[in-house]
Amino acid sequence: MENEFVKTFSESYAMKGGEGPHSYAQNSKVQRVGIEAAKSLIQKAIATKFDTNTNSTYSRKQICIADLGCSTGPNTFIAIQCIIEAIELQYKSKDLTIPDFQVFFNDHISNDFNTLFKNFPSNRNYFASGVPGSFYGRLFPKESINVFHSSASLSWISKVPKEITDRSSAAWNKGRIHYTNAPKEVVDAYANQYQKDMEIFLHARAEELVGNGLMALQIPAANDVTFHSEFYWGKKFELLGTCLVDMAKEGKVEEEKVDTFNLPIFFSPLKDLIKILESNDDFIIEQMETIDAKSHFIPVNAQMFASLHRAALEGVIENHFGDEILDELFDRYTKKVMEIPAMLDMQNLNVVALFVLLRRKV
Amino acid sequence: MENEFVKTFSESYAMKGGEGPHSYAQNSKVQRVGIEAAKSLIQKAIATKFDTNTNSTYSRKQICIADLGCSTGPNTFIAIQCIIEAIELQYKSKDLTIPDFQVFFNDHISNDFNTLFKNFPSNRNYFASGVPGSFYGRLFPKESINVFHSSASLSWISKVPKEITDRSSAAWNKGRIHYTNAPKEVVDAYANQYQKDMEIFLHARAEELVGNGLMALQIPAANDVTFHSEFYWGKKFELLGTCLVDMAKEGKVEEEKVDTFNLPIFFSPLKDLIKILESNDDFIIEQMETIDAKSHFIPVNAQMFASLHRAALEGVIENHFGDEILDELFDRYTKKVMEIPAMLDMQNLNVVALFVLLRRKV
Repeated sequence: MENEFVKTFSESYAMKGGEGPHSYAQNSKVQRVGIEAAKSLIQKAIATKFDTNTNSTYSRKQICIADLGCSTGPNTFIAIQCIIEAIELQYKSKDLTIPDFQVFFNDHISNDFNTLFKNFPSNRNYFASGVPGSFYGRLFPKESINVFHSSASLSWISKVPKEITDRSSAAWNKGRIHYTNAPKEVVDAYANQYQKDMEIFLHARAEELVGNGLMALQIPAANDVTFHSEFYWGKKFELLGTCLVDMAKEGKVEEEKVDTFNLPIFFSPLKDLIKILESNDDFIIEQMETIDAKSHFIPVNAQMFASLHRAALEGVIENHFGDEILDELFDRYTKKVMEIPAMLDMQNLNVVALFVLLRRKV
Repeated sequence: MENEFVKTFSESYAMKGGEGPHSYAQNSKVQRVGIEAAKSLIQKAIATKFDTNTNSTYSRKQICIADLGCSTGPNTFIAIQCIIEAIELQYKSKDLTIPDFQVFFNDHISNDFNTLFKNFPSNRNYFASGVPGSFYGRLFPKESINVFHSSASLSWISKVPKEITDRSSAAWNKGRIHYTNAPKEVVDAYANQYQKDMEIFLHARAEELVGNGLMALQIPAANDVTFHSEFYWGKKFELLGTCLVDMAKEGKVEEEKVDTFNLPIFFSPLKDLIKILESNDDFIIEQMETIDAKSHFIPVNAQMFASLHRAALEGVIENHFGDEILDELFDRYTKKVMEIPAMLDMQNLNVVALFVLLRRKV
């Protein structure tokens, strides 16, 4: 019998832990921009759509909120605070007693929860706990959560599609670590995995939400892209791939290792993502709009650019290659980025965040 | 305004993390003995006293269980499994659908939660999360927990009483690190802190438990002790104190540092502990008995004895002295224990575990 509590839907990826120079805690500015851009959207959406009756139906004294893909902070704390303030406002406006809040911070089991816990805001007004595990599976009891939030995490798929590391498959992704500029078969394998994962994600959350419960998601997607080769954001991964191929040529890493390594990251074309959300039967789409994060972007230099990506990608690279290659790999990456200044031009991006507020049907 | 979510009732102590030779995970055999001895007691108590109606009153679909002072496992998993099996039995015997279980593993924020999470049993049948924070304060929303468990943790007090590190106080505990063989004022200071802490503990849990909710505690206590100097278990701490004093004499650690260091551990005389529990108004005592763990004790040699104590005490010693002194301190300790073989004689103990099952009044 399958055990739903420990189902391994997913390989384990986590942002770099600790507080060091390469840590996610110190390198989450790009994701922070996403949070800041979405803050007023979330606040307004929750303030308008949160149903204070939801809870009394369940005779529960607390409101349970979960952030999925929380990493080690601080972005997760900003989002949670913003949701709690919006809910409190509703209770206050109706002269109702404000309930206790219980917040669940979720990420992969390899996430650095010790650091997350040390970063808990000292002035928080909620009870906090950490929940390790993949969100491509069940994490919470049935009908136990009032509000889910997830930001910038749903572009990580649960696993690299098997066929792209299979020599005998038409989808074998030799000499690349991502689907950018790859054959159609590779792109399709990624897209299929993404769709399967999203369906599993939505189904699991539907089970865990109370009736009328809300889910506020910011999902990275590719905008105005006809061909995946045009997807500018992906070029960053392509460039990182060329560094690995160079290192293989110099014998610093096994070619076989490079051929079997792929980033489990997919930016769905916006229209396909919307189709997945619209075709789901468990949720009503209360609100949906794209976030223009461009105007919030902070200019970065090549060093910072490489550091931001190292924080996000180091875990999955280390898992496959070991940690010896990291410094050299990202040194090479920094140099290549320096040679292509357009890479740093955040105005030039065709990545977008889709903000969607979903309500669980009763 | 005080913030109840981050009230620092307590300094932070935690068992040694990781999986190394000095880790708690590898050195929790003594505590394991306690769990094994109490297992059938807990199982029987929960199976008889758990009220399946408790939950339906609250219209909740899940049973929430929390273990307080969980460390990194595996003892906590044994206790939780035993509680869940007992509850399931009740549901089965009444032909009721078994609800989802949500388990909260709590320990100090300095506990190694990363290791705890990696140790989660792969065959568990519950949703699991970690809750960092001192149990001498609120950890959970009001009326949100059905069953609390705590084993062998309540002998750790929330902090060293201030007066015993105060040169000008009659309770100054110079040249000792514990109350064993200390002046009455020192013992009293410890006992007062313990009583205050226990009251705070019971009050916080009363707020967090649902009406009729249960709390199963195993509390270490001193048995048949008229004078604290006779308390055999304390002699282990006294001996460790002499090692520190020796190191101070040899200039290997500052005398001032030793004078201001005290172990925040108190074994209440059994009758005083029972008085504290009986005088509490929030709970009904459903069951109370002492556990004879002696027959379950595994014989240990001096090396193992020192290792077991290092796993439990290293954190609090390292906090005060830094980690440089640890190896030498416990080498010296091992040698001293070898010179006093009676120290290893577990049959000779006057420490006892009080098992108590408390029911939250409605």
